[in-house]
Amino acid sequence: MPEPAPRFAIGVDYGTNSVRALVVDAGTGEELAAGVFDYPSGEDGVLLDPRDPHLARQDPADYLEGFRRAVGEAVVRAGEHVGFAPERVAGIGVDTTGSTPIPVDRRGRPLALDPELRDDLAAHAWLWKDHTSWAEAAEITEAAARRPERYLSKCGGTYSSEWYWSKILHCARTSPRVFEAADSWVELADFVPAWATGRTDPRTLPRGICAAGHKAMYHEAWGGLPSAELLGALDPRLVPLRDRFATPALTSDRPAGGLRAGVAEAVGLPAGTTVAVGAFDAHMGAVGAGIRPGTLVKILGTSTCDLMVAPDEEGLADVPGLCGQVPGSVLPGMIGLEAGQSAVGDIFDWFVRRISPRGLQGEDSHRALTLESSALRAGESGLLALDWNNGNRTVLVDPMLTGLLVGQTLHTTPGEIYRALIEATAFGALAIIERLEEHGVAVDEIITCGGIAEKNPHVLQVYADVCGRPIGVSRSAQTCALGAAIFGAVAGGAHPDVPSAQAAMTGVQDRVFRPSPRDAATYRELYPLYRTLHDAFGGVSGPTPASLARVMKDLIAVRERVRRETPPAVRSPVAAKPSEEPCSTS
Amino acid sequence: MPEPAPRFAIGVDYGTNSVRALVVDAGTGEELAAGVFDYPSGEDGVLLDPRDPHLARQDPADYLEGFRRAVGEAVVRAGEHVGFAPERVAGIGVDTTGSTPIPVDRRGRPLALDPELRDDLAAHAWLWKDHTSWAEAAEITEAAARRPERYLSKCGGTYSSEWYWSKILHCARTSPRVFEAADSWVELADFVPAWATGRTDPRTLPRGICAAGHKAMYHEAWGGLPSAELLGALDPRLVPLRDRFATPALTSDRPAGGLRAGVAEAVGLPAGTTVAVGAFDAHMGAVGAGIRPGTLVKILGTSTCDLMVAPDEEGLADVPGLCGQVPGSVLPGMIGLEAGQSAVGDIFDWFVRRISPRGLQGEDSHRALTLESSALRAGESGLLALDWNNGNRTVLVDPMLTGLLVGQTLHTTPGEIYRALIEATAFGALAIIERLEEHGVAVDEIITCGGIAEKNPHVLQVYADVCGRPIGVSRSAQTCALGAAIFGAVAGGAHPDVPSAQAAMTGVQDRVFRPSPRDAATYRELYPLYRTLHDAFGGVSGPTPASLARVMKDLIAVRERVRRETPPAVRSPVAAKPSEEPCSTS
Repeated sequence: MPEPAPRFAIGVDYGTNSVRALVVDAGTGEELAAGVFDYPSGEDGVLLDPRDPHLARQDPADYLEGFRRAVGEAVVRAGEHVGFAPERVAGIGVDTTGSTPIPVDRRGRPLALDPELRDDLAAHAWLWKDHTSWAEAAEITEAAARRPERYLSKCGGTYSSEWYWSKILHCARTSPRVFEAADSWVELADFVPAWATGRTDPRTLPRGICAAGHKAMYHEAWGGLPSAELLGALDPRLVPLRDRFATPALTSDRPAGGLRAGVAEAVGLPAGTTVAVGAFDAHMGAVGAGIRPGTLVKILGTSTCDLMVAPDEEGLADVPGLCGQVPGSVLPGMIGLEAGQSAVGDIFDWFVRRISPRGLQGEDSHRALTLESSALRAGESGLLALDWNNGNRTVLVDPMLTGLLVGQTLHTTPGEIYRALIEATAFGALAIIERLEEHGVAVDEIITCGGIAEKNPHVLQVYADVCGRPIGVSRSAQTCALGAAIFGAVAGGAHPDVPSAQAAMTGVQDRVFRPSPRDAATYRELYPLYRTLHDAFGGVSGPTPASLARVMKDLIAVRERVRRETPPAVRSPVAAKPSEEPCSTS
Repeated sequence: MPEPAPRFAIGVDYGTNSVRALVVDAGTGEELAAGVFDYPSGEDGVLLDPRDPHLARQDPADYLEGFRRAVGEAVVRAGEHVGFAPERVAGIGVDTTGSTPIPVDRRGRPLALDPELRDDLAAHAWLWKDHTSWAEAAEITEAAARRPERYLSKCGGTYSSEWYWSKILHCARTSPRVFEAADSWVELADFVPAWATGRTDPRTLPRGICAAGHKAMYHEAWGGLPSAELLGALDPRLVPLRDRFATPALTSDRPAGGLRAGVAEAVGLPAGTTVAVGAFDAHMGAVGAGIRPGTLVKILGTSTCDLMVAPDEEGLADVPGLCGQVPGSVLPGMIGLEAGQSAVGDIFDWFVRRISPRGLQGEDSHRALTLESSALRAGESGLLALDWNNGNRTVLVDPMLTGLLVGQTLHTTPGEIYRALIEATAFGALAIIERLEEHGVAVDEIITCGGIAEKNPHVLQVYADVCGRPIGVSRSAQTCALGAAIFGAVAGGAHPDVPSAQAAMTGVQDRVFRPSPRDAATYRELYPLYRTLHDAFGGVSGPTPASLARVMKDLIAVRERVRRETPPAVRSPVAAKPSEEPCSTS
């Protein structure tokens, strides 16, 4: 008797503060049940050092307990659904934050679990947002740039303090005891499948291409990890790590192994259940959102992560300014292209909570400003902003940039500034799209997911109008966990490949945001002004003095035209008090 | 027996909403008594038209009643002082808003007093801030620019909608009945002395050089008023007005005449008491503040009016961008130079009340932000702004400019933005000073008066630091009325000339704001960055693309250095006290 359809898959999503497990119907994408576990250690799961604001670590014990508890809870809850049975789970996928490397001993056990090292923060997991290694990052960028291998060509030209080698080098410099005790450093995305399947030997445990390619400078073009020459030039003690890293790095449609007995028992699944090779949350999230060639997936939250895939063909040149271009990191057989905006929701929050709260609580202030902003037409405010309050990740790759707002009058309202900030982030999104298209990667549609996509239709409408492309919202609110489940399903044989699994398991909401011809036309006029500011302050050659001298006047001209075209009755009431001047001869 | 010292003088100051009379001891400047009369007509004394927000008129009857009531009250109150007697008043000076022209009949009576015309707003006084004639202003600018006489060389190259000929031409176009009924148009500054002395014949009544020179394009270089050719090209009906305007226009140290019996009786002064030729409030205010060569008087309020005097010598070229350069308009024998910033207090108010009120009432919000702002050091915010929310009057003479703020991060606070806006207006003040000095007019010190000078020491300290010059505050809070009294005293013979009267009657407060070496040094670094933005967005040739690309990075570098130099513990959250030192400038 054939095994009855449907089968199920489980996605396990390790976030910054908690881990979530999702049981999904592999035939439909229906989300049956979830389990969530908040990391108990530190502050919301993060170990901090009051003396160093750059430091952010996590206790690996939380990850293990989190797997047992979140997956176990999800499986119990799924059991309430007719047709679900633990034996019918095809596989488990795992996504995590990253780069979050963990120092491990010769057997692959995290050093932090050793009572002798437990009190040393360096022995714990180095969370993605740990910036203690900013000096080492600069050193690596400089050293890599001197090598002939073009190591930085796949990561936008700058190696980050958030990444694998920066953190390891910083540990070697500042915590030699921990560094010496570490046999190897394992990314969280690789560690969880290794631990769950018992394949923990650092020299053989499967390493995912996503973490290796995006964070460890791994690329087949130069034979895998960076050469012993580069690592040795940084610190001779790094060289042996090269040989304790199994290659080739694998895509996540491949099994990392089968669930080992102890873990299987704890979560209520059969031993041997397939566990897929792990990857990063944004990358699996893009898969859960339905990424495919031509579709940009934009994870819209405090910052953005933008992902595209392109066929891995001869002739696809490196796209300058992108922070990652890795074969197989998103979909097997395609190049995963990663870009991002350093701040989006963070900019809105900054304005709403710090600059113009007007006595309202955060969410009320957001609502009030959204109402005012959405009553405006494109161009009506006369304002234009740059979205660089936290630097520019793509396409300028320059953290030493700041925000800019131009066009203020004495009548400018908070709602107008709020809209200008939304528009600025949308223009920043368009700059990324243009960069991709200039290098042969067409962007036909945008699918969004993340907090802003769920909560703020006004922002999405502005994005559609600015980008001139339809914007869909992922059907699932848990795209990362869903993406992980998709890889679990494929690795476990429920679908022959990822696109088939996506076809069955993903989709967008009915509501699609389409460009409004009127506002989109105005934004086509405003975007060149944004580019003028962008290029002038971003150090891109191009803008002439004459073009800068036009910016304020062109903004006024657009503003006046839009106001003329829209009768005052249609517009929101804006109280304009006449100003009294002290000096009447003025 | 010689007449006993001291003698007295009266200044009558016609503001936008009220008229104030001040009885002053001509020997000491002591202010004995005041009388105030609020104009009863319209809204706070201003006649409005709900259909046209540009319209602002006043009922001339209010001016007459105001003179009687305010002067009468001041004289009665002065009578309580030992030594005062109406016979001992040397003279009366009058300052008014302007350009505020009044259409009058053949006998010099305001048309608005004619019952047949009373209901027509065009028959009333056209208040300085009436902007109905914006189209005519553009037309006049264009026509004047075509003439060989360089008519616009004394007013910054642009004729304003607020000025004399614009308003008359607009009346000719839109209210022909009133225009035809008007024998002439008399500035309020000339009308009041004419009415008070009975010399109301439009063809002979004394016209002041201040109003004529600053607003009616009067200059000896081209023989007085603009030529019949220019006026005729605008509208042939303007030409006859040329001959109903007594020339030469006079300085305000000259008597306009003696108080006529009816008025004298109403105010309790002897008939025949000298009334000086009138002038504008800001110009007489500068005299009351102690203006002299080398001293810039800055009337700091919602906007600023900046006044200088320079010896009327061969070789003093026109200073480009200044909105007025008129011999004798401030001090007889000197060229009066007028500049201004289109918005200062208005920008602060805009930010405090509209953008970042944080649930506080206006004054409380001002106080809270001032406290935060004054706890900062120069450069610490990393922000830089342009002060163009209401355009730029001097030195760019361009209303089609807007505000700009650069340097925002996700940690930028309202107090930092508030300080950046204060600094921006101070940089704008320095740009005016530099322009004056480039053309041979040295600015050694600054004396301020007006609302901000009275109320906000923090702003004055920033101005001293940015401008690198000591800043004094006028001793009198009523500098306009005091200045008018000075002219009354001189015209009435109590002093031989205006400087002698100023020496006796004016002074600055003990408190002088001196540049702090530390912050002044930082501002010397920041001002070139302001100029880079100023010139780039203001259309002045100069800034290179490389200099713009440095702006954000240089601001960050200054910010980081200042923060390093000042340990957090040293940075006090308490408002910095201005340096209080005895005054050496009086």
